[in-house]
Amino acid sequence: MPKTAAMLVIGDEILSGRTQDTNSNYVARQLTAIGIDLQEVRVVGDVEDEIVAALNALRSRYDFVFTTGGIGPTHDDITADAVAKAFDVGIGYHPEAYALLEARYAAGEFNDARKRMARVPDGGTLIKNSASIAPGFQIGNVFVMAGVPMVMRAMMEEILPRLPRGALVLSVTISTALPEGAIAQGLADIQKAYPDTVIGSYPWYRDGTFGAQLVVRSRDAAMVEAAAREIEALAIKLGATPERISSV
Amino acid sequence: MPKTAAMLVIGDEILSGRTQDTNSNYVARQLTAIGIDLQEVRVVGDVEDEIVAALNALRSRYDFVFTTGGIGPTHDDITADAVAKAFDVGIGYHPEAYALLEARYAAGEFNDARKRMARVPDGGTLIKNSASIAPGFQIGNVFVMAGVPMVMRAMMEEILPRLPRGALVLSVTISTALPEGAIAQGLADIQKAYPDTVIGSYPWYRDGTFGAQLVVRSRDAAMVEAAAREIEALAIKLGATPERISSV
Repeated sequence: MPKTAAMLVIGDEILSGRTQDTNSNYVARQLTAIGIDLQEVRVVGDVEDEIVAALNALRSRYDFVFTTGGIGPTHDDITADAVAKAFDVGIGYHPEAYALLEARYAAGEFNDARKRMARVPDGGTLIKNSASIAPGFQIGNVFVMAGVPMVMRAMMEEILPRLPRGALVLSVTISTALPEGAIAQGLADIQKAYPDTVIGSYPWYRDGTFGAQLVVRSRDAAMVEAAAREIEALAIKLGATPERISSV
Repeated sequence: MPKTAAMLVIGDEILSGRTQDTNSNYVARQLTAIGIDLQEVRVVGDVEDEIVAALNALRSRYDFVFTTGGIGPTHDDITADAVAKAFDVGIGYHPEAYALLEARYAAGEFNDARKRMARVPDGGTLIKNSASIAPGFQIGNVFVMAGVPMVMRAMMEEILPRLPRGALVLSVTISTALPEGAIAQGLADIQKAYPDTVIGSYPWYRDGTFGAQLVVRSRDAAMVEAAAREIEALAIKLGATPERISSV
């Protein structure tokens, strides 16, 4: 069975609309690229009970959970404490994180707020941060990362080698200038004939023309190719010129 | 009490990373602008049981739920059926939706796939779509919208007059070239002194300089202003020049 994952985005700024979350999309693409299926994303605010409840729901259901946000030095950074509470473990300074941070700051600058960034739930292991030192951490099947995209990406680089590789979901994307409503019935028939693929249709509109990108996905390369050819034949039969715009 | 909301984004293409969701951010900003608090976002794939479970969890907990995606004419558009199942009601052609769509297509082009877009759970009322005719619908406290951003926005225009106006969350954003770790303790003290505000800190890094945007939010204008002034005084005391970059 393919491994599954969920993402928990933590931060009032996402829910107020102040910040557009792009971390989920990045993590989604990274996981797709190693054959892990991201199956759910949740966004919650900086509220301990909400983080605890969401994390416990997700970590019990999926193989891996990735969180972003809430691990900085300020009072609104409550993720580490919430994760400790979710796992029902203590929390304290992680010696290695403490040493890394202590070395980063000049004498007298390693204050209590900065020390907060060395707090890791008991049993957690560090996720190094090549961008800005202060580490994330892993506990059980949960990976806790920063919210700043550059830092999150640096942490994801550290996490990827820890994750198992699964068979990739292969996909072919075919674009055709047919409105979805014209191709829908034929597409449904192809989906039925290729139950081991998942076929998605994503409409587009350009310069007065309606079209769709038709995406076939499966871990079975032969099935993807066979279904893709049927879609191309369908488009041609309907008078269009299908264009295979990606095949990965 | 302020009204609360959740968003349910439906679509495999978001979870695979193929598509960056921007609808949540748009809905978040629209709701913030009328005083409704978006408290949770979930993203699930095109899987009926997942949609039903998430929708039932959200609609029982929040005043309003907004969904995007899965209401087109193709086989992978299963949102209307999932919503009917979640509400345990039947589903069929909505006469007004059917008439709108029938009028849109030339004779012979209003095929079964296109008729699917007229299917609405029993008891649902239409959300008109000035962008591409095919309507969304409201049932109970759930608003079901298209996934294509342009269409979703047209539907949101129709929904906004149906929603109650609440007291707005006001916010002041102060940017200062102080690293979070330097201002964190003072900021925590201000948060404690102004418990009716929520103060967030969002770090930035530019040309070798660390800084933070400090955001004070509250429905109480006087509290926002008082806390903002304390933050400005704190930044000045720490040797920085705070800049008030927005006040809404």
